[in-house]
Amino acid sequence: MTAVDFAAFVDDLATLSGTAIMPFFRTTLAAADKSRGGMFDPVTEADRAGEAAMRQMIKRTFPSHGIIGEEYGDERTDAEFVWVLDPIDGTKAFISGLPMWGTLIGLTRHGEPCYGMMHQPFTRERFTGDGGFARWRGPTGERTLRTRACESLGDAILSCTSPRMFRGAELEAFERVEREARLARFGCDCYAYCMLAAGLIDVVIETDLKPYDIVALAPIVTGAGGVVTTWSGESAAKGGAIVAAGDPRLHEKVLKLLNA
Amino acid sequence: MTAVDFAAFVDDLATLSGTAIMPFFRTTLAAADKSRGGMFDPVTEADRAGEAAMRQMIKRTFPSHGIIGEEYGDERTDAEFVWVLDPIDGTKAFISGLPMWGTLIGLTRHGEPCYGMMHQPFTRERFTGDGGFARWRGPTGERTLRTRACESLGDAILSCTSPRMFRGAELEAFERVEREARLARFGCDCYAYCMLAAGLIDVVIETDLKPYDIVALAPIVTGAGGVVTTWSGESAAKGGAIVAAGDPRLHEKVLKLLNA
Repeated sequence: MTAVDFAAFVDDLATLSGTAIMPFFRTTLAAADKSRGGMFDPVTEADRAGEAAMRQMIKRTFPSHGIIGEEYGDERTDAEFVWVLDPIDGTKAFISGLPMWGTLIGLTRHGEPCYGMMHQPFTRERFTGDGGFARWRGPTGERTLRTRACESLGDAILSCTSPRMFRGAELEAFERVEREARLARFGCDCYAYCMLAAGLIDVVIETDLKPYDIVALAPIVTGAGGVVTTWSGESAAKGGAIVAAGDPRLHEKVLKLLNA
Repeated sequence: MTAVDFAAFVDDLATLSGTAIMPFFRTTLAAADKSRGGMFDPVTEADRAGEAAMRQMIKRTFPSHGIIGEEYGDERTDAEFVWVLDPIDGTKAFISGLPMWGTLIGLTRHGEPCYGMMHQPFTRERFTGDGGFARWRGPTGERTLRTRACESLGDAILSCTSPRMFRGAELEAFERVEREARLARFGCDCYAYCMLAAGLIDVVIETDLKPYDIVALAPIVTGAGGVVTTWSGESAAKGGAIVAAGDPRLHEKVLKLLNA
């Protein structure tokens, strides 16, 4: 069974989680604060409902698979196939009513991301990729995702969720890139990686990502022709400080500038 | 003829401009740079097509009315009724493929905003207001817009398009507010004012706005129960440094902090 065989199952997971999540979007939510003295990190009922629904379906269908999720922790992470779930990537966007959040459904095989989906149930968009191919589906049809050529940072659109995510040397490194970029766009969460896959954004730089923030997105980026690694050029699968670029030549330049 | 009589006409304008703009969304655009050494300010074919279509319909239907537009300048600005148009508010979002831009259609009577719409043709949402009432319409139905009570800045969600829009004393003032807010969200353009009207965002602080950036949004914010003024408490109709709040008590507090 190859990773691509899971595509229909992931579609079902997305439909299920979307149905669980959407009744909570743009309603008044009691957002609990699960962070301990750190940045504001809202947990919503929607987050829990979406993840619980997906976990149940995975366990029923593939009882031998592992699961890593934001809300309910890890199970069987040494399995051949492990599902990596973030029901609402972009909880701040979600509670602000902005359609910039997404449901991330990733699958790893032997620890490496092999299939991923970003589902935006409000705009009814699904971005998927398996590292070799990536596509978009939405209310108006579907299309293949391809990154665009962009060798020079001076021509590049840069994105990150917030410049406030960086501190100290990381902030200096980010600002070195920002100063040379054509323009910087903030507030995108997972949507930025999908627009990079679509050839509309050229670089995404973030830090402090968890595996469930990036595992689903990596096969979309690479499937569209892009590159995504840590700032030190390692696999993005474990999260951390991440840089994605649509053009491999630009990725190399940005890596150098981040580590200058 | 009262301002409310224009509602059906504004719907037609929005449909027309949406039809003109959408073929350009998420395609490769030749973005001309119309700024002269300042921040990157893309002009797109879509911007021009949307505004040209709206101007033509306004001139044909209301030849005595004035028009202020981003792309094609001002006409008859001393007329009783003046249309204030921004076909794509959030051009950076637009060229990045993000559905955070909107078409702003405002109407002033004797210089004061009396009706406005924010139209997002990709998500198919229309936010309208006349200063006394505001509503949302979208693919799933329609609802009245009401801001939420939020007296304390410590409970408030703050938004602005980018912290990079502020310099010097304005940046210090913005950061005084940001430090006390519950969370800050960047990258929203016109969408932020609409989510404030919907009771999901509490404060929007921006600067260097043009009249066409805010005239359409002001009647939506006030129609939902919010307050929008310049940082010095004057009418927002002329643009400049703008602060909007859903709760009038919070607006007063934020004004004080900005001017501390």
